[in-house]
Amino acid sequence: MPDITLYRANGSCSLVAHILLRELGIPFKGVVLDYSFKERRITGSQDGSLTREDYLKISPLGYSPALTVDGDIILENPAILPYIASLAPERGLAGKDPLDRARVAQWLAFLSGTLHGHAYGMFFSPDRFTDDEALFDAIRQKGRDKIAQYNALIERMLGGREFPVGDAETLADYYLYLFYRWGVERGFDMSPHKSFERIARRVEEKESVKETVKAEGKELVFGGTRGE
Amino acid sequence: MPDITLYRANGSCSLVAHILLRELGIPFKGVVLDYSFKERRITGSQDGSLTREDYLKISPLGYSPALTVDGDIILENPAILPYIASLAPERGLAGKDPLDRARVAQWLAFLSGTLHGHAYGMFFSPDRFTDDEALFDAIRQKGRDKIAQYNALIERMLGGREFPVGDAETLADYYLYLFYRWGVERGFDMSPHKSFERIARRVEEKESVKETVKAEGKELVFGGTRGE
Repeated sequence: MPDITLYRANGSCSLVAHILLRELGIPFKGVVLDYSFKERRITGSQDGSLTREDYLKISPLGYSPALTVDGDIILENPAILPYIASLAPERGLAGKDPLDRARVAQWLAFLSGTLHGHAYGMFFSPDRFTDDEALFDAIRQKGRDKIAQYNALIERMLGGREFPVGDAETLADYYLYLFYRWGVERGFDMSPHKSFERIARRVEEKESVKETVKAEGKELVFGGTRGE
Repeated sequence: MPDITLYRANGSCSLVAHILLRELGIPFKGVVLDYSFKERRITGSQDGSLTREDYLKISPLGYSPALTVDGDIILENPAILPYIASLAPERGLAGKDPLDRARVAQWLAFLSGTLHGHAYGMFFSPDRFTDDEALFDAIRQKGRDKIAQYNALIERMLGGREFPVGDAETLADYYLYLFYRWGVERGFDMSPHKSFERIARRVEEKESVKETVKAEGKELVFGGTRGE
């Protein structure tokens, strides 16, 4: 097994890589990054080993997560998650054939680029889109509208299926769990999205997921409501 | 070989899939989409076979490209390009081992999500970020600034290397070629970005690339300047 370090921020999109490393039993070192909500950026690591400038040498845009593999750096969830899956090929989490791998990659690209980068980007970080603070609330509101629209699109793309790709669990299930969590945490009405909810509920029932959410100091979405 | 159709718009980011299909000698049917610059959206296909509503059944957000494979739909360049590469595995264009595949996937995610979706998104389609037409010019300008910043970041990430990943051509070279083209076409000063230019120049020297650019009714970036 290579020597792996995950740079992550509690509750951020690095939760997915964190869950996968634990679910697959892959030994890793974790470095927890400090995020300043006021400055809307990572300011260093909680253990004092990294300043912001140190972290920018790993991740030039200062985003979480980053993964190092024997000293090589991998950035971006659509690269990090399939790499982690490649360490347990028998699980087939990146998809079992080229078409399923394409379907998994499509989910990762849409969730990372469009739902997170575009819609949650506007909602979390309006300063990425305008320098005029007077416009931040309007950008945030349009981000909210986009998130609601994309949550509905996800439900439509799932089309009642048990798994987003094929007939087995893939990376798409774990990544969708993150965005279901964020929807609940940020007060979006997730109740119309029954397929989305069913997938998120199945993912959260795993011990690895419960442990990881707890290790990040966060609450379970479905708490005591399993099987309801 | 599966039955493949590429839905594309001339000069859009579907150019990369179009080039790859020709470069790899993969038989495919092409459907050319009509794009309305005024409405900032795809309005149907040039051969009259598709209305906008028909295309939205293929690509729910109405984006180019889409690829159908024996009737199955694949969306998003970070999914479409590796799928096409999987049809000619001996070329290893998606990367030859898990770490190189992760590096290729990282380039695809950054170029698709951050450079295209975020920076070019603001520049091309400010209406995706605000409903207030009075703000379109400011959003476009911030998009321009981001594009210039990301072009410089690409150069820094290339770090003088001959290939973006490893010691051979991958999907990252072809995708970078598109963004070098867009930089030139949109009047960005690409002259400081020597590694970026060298990669784009090498890609454009391929006959498949010249033919595809011509088939889309576009100009070569380096025209008669080969070897200058």
